[in-house]
Amino acid sequence: MTIQHYPDLKALVFDVQGTATDFRSTLVEEAVRLSRSRALEIDWGTFVDEWRGLYRPALDAVLSGARPWTSVDLIYREALDQLLEKLGLTFFSEEERRELNFGWQKIRPWPDVVDGLVRLKKNYKIATLSNADVSAVVNIAKHGNLPWDAIFAAEMAGTFKPDPRTYNMAMKYLGLRPHEVMMVACHKYDLHAAKQLGMRTAFVARPLEFGPAGKVDTAFEAAFDVNASDFLHLAQQLGC
Amino acid sequence: MTIQHYPDLKALVFDVQGTATDFRSTLVEEAVRLSRSRALEIDWGTFVDEWRGLYRPALDAVLSGARPWTSVDLIYREALDQLLEKLGLTFFSEEERRELNFGWQKIRPWPDVVDGLVRLKKNYKIATLSNADVSAVVNIAKHGNLPWDAIFAAEMAGTFKPDPRTYNMAMKYLGLRPHEVMMVACHKYDLHAAKQLGMRTAFVARPLEFGPAGKVDTAFEAAFDVNASDFLHLAQQLGC
Repeated sequence: MTIQHYPDLKALVFDVQGTATDFRSTLVEEAVRLSRSRALEIDWGTFVDEWRGLYRPALDAVLSGARPWTSVDLIYREALDQLLEKLGLTFFSEEERRELNFGWQKIRPWPDVVDGLVRLKKNYKIATLSNADVSAVVNIAKHGNLPWDAIFAAEMAGTFKPDPRTYNMAMKYLGLRPHEVMMVACHKYDLHAAKQLGMRTAFVARPLEFGPAGKVDTAFEAAFDVNASDFLHLAQQLGC
Repeated sequence: MTIQHYPDLKALVFDVQGTATDFRSTLVEEAVRLSRSRALEIDWGTFVDEWRGLYRPALDAVLSGARPWTSVDLIYREALDQLLEKLGLTFFSEEERRELNFGWQKIRPWPDVVDGLVRLKKNYKIATLSNADVSAVVNIAKHGNLPWDAIFAAEMAGTFKPDPRTYNMAMKYLGLRPHEVMMVACHKYDLHAAKQLGMRTAFVARPLEFGPAGKVDTAFEAAFDVNASDFLHLAQQLGC
């Protein structure tokens, strides 16, 4: 194992949905729980994948200026209503929809995350840099005991990743320069945007983000400063 | 001891400089350390009091519109230069001034704070709501092992307390309504502003904020939901 030395590195900022948390299994569990009393034959995994699939286009509509900034909570809720309509599952009550949608605020950390963060926190500032709403990221952290030093979210810049204003906001709020901050994500677009600004980058492979059959790019790339199989592997490579 | 029940209470937001931390003793220590090689007969406690005394007028200049938003780091630095000039201590080097000014980002928690926060954190979300810069609040938290769930600072609203936008920003980022959030502060103006918006309020007396001889309003008042002698007393009254 090579330990990489970045003498200037002071902080790591983390993507949350996908990189730090397993939204799919949490949302499937919520959907199963809420639909238990009904005899439904639904593949909830595919349901969650479709739901999540409606998320990125909504963010892109904001980024292109086609739509004003909108909370991610509302984006997920609109997508849920749309999906339930499409699948003819319109019997879900308002209360059930609200509860199911709130599942995104309870998404569980991957098993390596808490231990990895605890190790990284000893040497670095660790903060979120999420497209989810601030309130959602706080709820996710509280629910999963994630020991962040700070919560930053794109909402604080009134935009979404990969808009540079998001990364610049986090660096300003940390009082640090680009080469002092490493972006950690399982989504390469996020890392490319950070790298463009001069930030360090760490790719973490999350092969199960879209379930056992999901198509996910898990290839390590020399373009990133660090490539890791999980947060423990990341901590190890940074000498933590 | 009466335990007060606030069934709707979900979060506590805390003032940092003064309420959670003892800036005076930390800054005095820094000043003594940095001036040790010189035979100076200076009452560094009074020096820090004067320094801090220049801070509030600078914030008020921003609030009145007389001055654009300015980082608190710069406000303290300008005040420091002004004070050193006035006292004829101009031999302090740029490096020493920078180091001394950075003392505001290392201010120590009062002895009751970490234990109190750990107890409160079990039942509530706990976040900062500080007039200090975000980066300073992160440094203070990291330095003092303060287990905040989130860092909020007036900088995120581009203003300072008691501007209502500051409190509203924190409530929005917590996803909570006013009666679900309690402002905790040793400065009554801060609590009055929060109460005005419908927030709960907790006064914590900090008789030593300006040293043993300092004049500080420590009187408990029925206008506040809770009056406490420290964070442990606050935790106790909230049943934590």
